[in-house]
Amino acid sequence: MDVTLAIDAMGGDHGTTVTIPAAVEYLKQFPGDTIVLVGIPDAIESELRALGVQAGPRLRIHAASEVVGMDEQPQSALRGKKDSSMRVAIDLVKSGEASACVSAGNTGALMATARYVLKTLPGIDRPAIASYLPTKKGQVCMLDLGANTDCTAEHLLQFALMGSTLVTALEHKPNPTVGLLNIGSEDIKGNEVVKQAAELLRGSDLNFYGNVEGNDIFKGTTDLVVCDGFVGNVALKTTEGLAQMLGGFLKEEFKRNAFTKLAGLIAMPVLNAFKRRVDHRRYNGASFLGLKGIVVKSHGSADIFAFRCAIEKAAEEAREGMLLHISEHVEKWHHERQKTEQGVA
Amino acid sequence: MDVTLAIDAMGGDHGTTVTIPAAVEYLKQFPGDTIVLVGIPDAIESELRALGVQAGPRLRIHAASEVVGMDEQPQSALRGKKDSSMRVAIDLVKSGEASACVSAGNTGALMATARYVLKTLPGIDRPAIASYLPTKKGQVCMLDLGANTDCTAEHLLQFALMGSTLVTALEHKPNPTVGLLNIGSEDIKGNEVVKQAAELLRGSDLNFYGNVEGNDIFKGTTDLVVCDGFVGNVALKTTEGLAQMLGGFLKEEFKRNAFTKLAGLIAMPVLNAFKRRVDHRRYNGASFLGLKGIVVKSHGSADIFAFRCAIEKAAEEAREGMLLHISEHVEKWHHERQKTEQGVA
Repeated sequence: MDVTLAIDAMGGDHGTTVTIPAAVEYLKQFPGDTIVLVGIPDAIESELRALGVQAGPRLRIHAASEVVGMDEQPQSALRGKKDSSMRVAIDLVKSGEASACVSAGNTGALMATARYVLKTLPGIDRPAIASYLPTKKGQVCMLDLGANTDCTAEHLLQFALMGSTLVTALEHKPNPTVGLLNIGSEDIKGNEVVKQAAELLRGSDLNFYGNVEGNDIFKGTTDLVVCDGFVGNVALKTTEGLAQMLGGFLKEEFKRNAFTKLAGLIAMPVLNAFKRRVDHRRYNGASFLGLKGIVVKSHGSADIFAFRCAIEKAAEEAREGMLLHISEHVEKWHHERQKTEQGVA
Repeated sequence: MDVTLAIDAMGGDHGTTVTIPAAVEYLKQFPGDTIVLVGIPDAIESELRALGVQAGPRLRIHAASEVVGMDEQPQSALRGKKDSSMRVAIDLVKSGEASACVSAGNTGALMATARYVLKTLPGIDRPAIASYLPTKKGQVCMLDLGANTDCTAEHLLQFALMGSTLVTALEHKPNPTVGLLNIGSEDIKGNEVVKQAAELLRGSDLNFYGNVEGNDIFKGTTDLVVCDGFVGNVALKTTEGLAQMLGGFLKEEFKRNAFTKLAGLIAMPVLNAFKRRVDHRRYNGASFLGLKGIVVKSHGSADIFAFRCAIEKAAEEAREGMLLHISEHVEKWHHERQKTEQGVA
């Protein structure tokens, strides 16, 4: 199935110099798809000229006169910039002109705008942010990564439903295992919300593995890890910090003196293979789940390769009809719960 | 000042084969100190014989007939094993025969027993677990790492008070910077508890830096990072998992074929320097803060070097009179708060 994708061309630390080359590269790989570049026409045209590429039916320009700043308050962006590239890209999803949108713009503003414009799916209280991380065995999907700081057990269950559907759509795993992030694998461990969430998950039709701990994320113990947005965001950023520190130390040690530099030169192909293996750019693209439309958030500092990965993720979600699957999954679960409650009553 | 340390000789994955050699090595370095090896006399004596070391006034044996299992439930250990090596080591701290105790035994049982036997300091509601991590700049102290899963803002403030005192005692920093772990640096970010805790911290006499994010931990943005035990435990274990995965990948890449093995051989001194730099064994030894006695928990899988580091930490806390400092700090803060409240009323 060919899809149409709306790209917030102005978003991110590098704006059009990253988003547009990435879109052009994407279209080379998927020539049947259509990309709508949303933003200030002059800026978009100038970048296209620099690339020697012409706009056309498969690479359209859609004007938007404003740009949301990377540090702008979500409410200011939402209320004050109704013609921002971010907002217009989301509007195109709302109107059905695009099947998904991708932005590297500021996360808070993107979530607030997407939630306001698209609304949540029936049966979903709050959207969540899901992303993939590399593991020893392959990859793991994790949510929520920062959209919800105070969650109930019911919210965590909804995250698990949505995340399972995402994993099934993107990885074609029919029944992904779900881990609940906790501080011990025993049932008695954890805070009250997590204990209740475990109960709900055990009663659901999801493939609930049980509690997992922080180290299980990178072990690849489960296909999906569910947590509240506070914990998820801290875990994600902590790993970013550690990876940066370790990478920096390794570089420093290899640059210490003439001998270590020579050793570094000899080890270069191995170090590069290692780098490729843990290249976080491949995992770029966080899915905003639970909205009536597909929105993928790229890291603000993404380069061309990373941003193209985010576009691919959005396209894949659209192609796989992920929204419909989530709706069906949630509806089925509500239906079964009603039956159970009526049975009990 | 010379100190007497009670060692749970039976605790940990390796029991006496790690705890006793570590104690013997420690005494070589600090011959003025005294170590009391607590556990089953036969087992202790047999290990001492194997090491060719004799017990004496500076290396005493104190009998305890039971051992707490690494997976035993805290309540079962607390109620059922009143003569365990763990319990008796803590009893020695309670009676004043030892200034501190060290155990590599199961965390839950150790915390439950320590709390039951020693009780909390006046003005402290709950003990917390603090530990050091390496950073780009040096090291950071972080708490709580898992003792408290549901915390109030007041608890977080108490953690900050205790952690600051620990950093001052161990690093001789008079006014350590305190970061509150959050999901954004702005004041409006985070969950309700964290927002309230920031208010309390701003009103305290601590050197409050403000909110920090997960990546700030390893950047070394602040001397101390405060969080609830759920978040802290997840962050800690997530980093353990990531470090293990990255180390494993690096090893695999260097073992891939004859060429990469040769490159690994040449790069060995550099890789070893890197390993030494991030050697987590140097950071072994988590402090249980807020109790009327010093208890240091070693990682269960600690080796001799790591366990000796935990003993050193306990000795340092005792030498620096950390308990008195915490008590004074908490008392001063309660006093000032009362004054403020009376002033307001």
